[in-house]
Amino acid sequence: MDTVGILGGGQLARMLALAAAPLGLRVLVMDTVADACAGQCAPLLVGDYRDEAALAEFAAKAGVATFDFENVPAASAQWLARRIPVYPGPGALAVAQDRLAEKTLFRELGIPVPDFVDVPTREALEAAVARIGTPCILKTRRLGYDGKGQFRIRSTADVGAAWAALGAQAAEVGLILEAFVPFERELSVVAVRGRDGDFRTWPLTENWHVDGVLSASLAPARCEPAIEAQAHAHARALAERLDYTGVFALELFCRDGVLLANELAPRVHNSGHWTIEGAETSQFENHLRAVLGLPLGATRMIGHACMLNWIGAMPDPAPVLREPGGHWHDYGKQARDGRKVGHATLRADTPQALQAALERVGTALERQAQVAPVIERLAG
Amino acid sequence: MDTVGILGGGQLARMLALAAAPLGLRVLVMDTVADACAGQCAPLLVGDYRDEAALAEFAAKAGVATFDFENVPAASAQWLARRIPVYPGPGALAVAQDRLAEKTLFRELGIPVPDFVDVPTREALEAAVARIGTPCILKTRRLGYDGKGQFRIRSTADVGAAWAALGAQAAEVGLILEAFVPFERELSVVAVRGRDGDFRTWPLTENWHVDGVLSASLAPARCEPAIEAQAHAHARALAERLDYTGVFALELFCRDGVLLANELAPRVHNSGHWTIEGAETSQFENHLRAVLGLPLGATRMIGHACMLNWIGAMPDPAPVLREPGGHWHDYGKQARDGRKVGHATLRADTPQALQAALERVGTALERQAQVAPVIERLAG
Ligand SMILES: Nc1ncnc2c1ncn2[C@@H]1O[C@H](COP(=O)(O)OP(=O)(O)OP(=O)(O)O)[C@@H](O)[C@H]1O
Ligand SMILES: Nc1ncnc2c1ncn2[C@@H]1O[C@H](COP(=O)(O)OP(=O)(O)OP(=O)(O)O)[C@@H](O)[C@H]1O
Repeated sequence: MDTVGILGGGQLARMLALAAAPLGLRVLVMDTVADACAGQCAPLLVGDYRDEAALAEFAAKAGVATFDFENVPAASAQWLARRIPVYPGPGALAVAQDRLAEKTLFRELGIPVPDFVDVPTREALEAAVARIGTPCILKTRRLGYDGKGQFRIRSTADVGAAWAALGAQAAEVGLILEAFVPFERELSVVAVRGRDGDFRTWPLTENWHVDGVLSASLAPARCEPAIEAQAHAHARALAERLDYTGVFALELFCRDGVLLANELAPRVHNSGHWTIEGAETSQFENHLRAVLGLPLGATRMIGHACMLNWIGAMPDPAPVLREPGGHWHDYGKQARDGRKVGHATLRADTPQALQAALERVGTALERQAQVAPVIERLAG
Repeated sequence: MDTVGILGGGQLARMLALAAAPLGLRVLVMDTVADACAGQCAPLLVGDYRDEAALAEFAAKAGVATFDFENVPAASAQWLARRIPVYPGPGALAVAQDRLAEKTLFRELGIPVPDFVDVPTREALEAAVARIGTPCILKTRRLGYDGKGQFRIRSTADVGAAWAALGAQAAEVGLILEAFVPFERELSVVAVRGRDGDFRTWPLTENWHVDGVLSASLAPARCEPAIEAQAHAHARALAERLDYTGVFALELFCRDGVLLANELAPRVHNSGHWTIEGAETSQFENHLRAVLGLPLGATRMIGHACMLNWIGAMPDPAPVLREPGGHWHDYGKQARDGRKVGHATLRADTPQALQAALERVGTALERQAQVAPVIERLAG
């Protein structure tokens, strides 16, 4: 029986572990903290990703390794990859870890991106703002997530504040300045590529963020087939160039009918959680199938699905459990401000039924603001 | 956070544990053996169900208890129920543990049953065979499963052999003689009742057995609505009489358009495994919702589903994984003759597509005989 090692023990590893059991796989999770929530569903090895003794123990127990967390140090991924197969490979991971490398690759592949400039120094920031114009966003090149490590520059007057906020990180993780995109929609493609090159995408998903954190996802996204085809083509081009194995998400902005690539997440992704109930095969199962070299499962949708993220604390489950297509996902975490602690997926046969379910749940949980943009899209 | 204790650590406990995690529940499994397969998915307490120290440890750690195994000694269930809530209750369990009590209850509720007689002695057996006629089946009253503890009596000449085979068990577990039913079909209703009395059934399932062990299940069963309504009414009558909480299965024979009750299984059931992918809410999740007092989930089907049991050893997964609606369930058990080691569920939008999938899988795995009766039903 194969053991799949997962670096990072959050909710993504937890849902991977739950998908692994029916495939007859064992899982070993490694995380830096002992209460990592995946540890409730699989054996947990606590250790620092830079600690070679811990990595050696992990490599001795796992037949193959993957990630729930893309910010595992590149050197650790490479060290592991010399001992056991690691998917996605350290090369793909390195590109996705660095916004500059990632955006440079998008450009090379002819995938439109918001204008961007590397910002090694304060002087470079001033020149970059002058070139890109305002509004724009200063971001750390590495280690950002959920909108952390970002500063919005509304006018040149903000340059000093932006540097004060992030300048200290220029040396360690690097900085990049990006044009601010006044997008109409945010979309993502969740895709999977097998070891043999078989490539599949789930239907395009529309996403809504609040304070930089995903709040709701709707699938299938209600947009023109040409947009979906374009998004899928971009995902395929990336996967093939990176010789990617496993699931990844490509986050996109849509503006005036044009897609601009924002980010490549080299792992199962929050905007694909709806696939657990809303698709024939979930992103978690297909990631494992890809990593193990098994045939990939069908990615077709079953109805219409909306995922609602629970941030900070879990709400009352009853209104969701009472819905005919209501599904609950509690990650078993302690409540904490800004923390992703769970999600719900509502599934329905028609957009109308999904809209009605969202209205009921939004009202019952007093989360009207969270469901409103999704309802608006479904009604529009 | 609630911990659900499960007595018995086989595949049913394993699939309950996998359904428990998204609900934010912790699980504690108790089994007599250390390699019980549910132990791969949840903490496992190894101990004898009669050992009060082990039961006390179990009761101290679990907020509520349930079963993956109906043959937990009645005294142990009662001992536990004095300490923590136990669902289904020991009363319902006691009835379902004893074929005589069970069949007597069926009769009381007006649910037709094959003729049956209690058989305490060899003389009673002779009188019973004379009364019921041949063919008939001698069964142990308690502790039978997968057709074990049964002897078919074709003619009065077999009485001696039947007694030689099972007579020694008359004193300990009791014996019952049943008329042999030349049924046309075997059906089962999987149903769930909440703590608050909310009652739901999944669509009727048709089942095929080989050597007394379930081989294949098809849902929805292709039969007249009146039969399905009758089956659901029987299940509801039983659940209400027993004040049942949780999932159970009622196994039925269908002969000349009449349903005869065979057995009540007071737990999630092999003939309900297809609900994982084929229904909005699986039997495993709804059992947990019932036991926890949460609202029950919708039991509606999603398409058409066929479950194939893997007995003895797992076949090659590739042909099932390659199917657009193919789902794999490996219980993580060692191969052993006659052991249920896993199952596959094929799901499709139409009966025709399901039939085609069964033909492909049957051929690829050289299991034509296993899929043949299901294909015949779908084609007929
Ligand atoms: N260039 C931009 N123009 C407009 N909005 C942006 C831009 N970059 C980021 N945002 C907004 O901030 C959100 C988070 O940004 P980004 O994806 O870069 O951050 P992250 O920390 O990597 O987030 P995640 O962990 O969700 O992937 C985006 O989804 C978008 O709503
Ligand atoms: N009275 C009967 N007439 C005809 N066939 C019978 C009869 N009783 C049992 N069988 C056959 O044997 C199979 C197993 O019988 P039964 O359900 O009584 O046994 P069990 O050991 O409790 O099985 P399980 O664990 O599958 O519930 C039935 O599904 C049926 O195919």
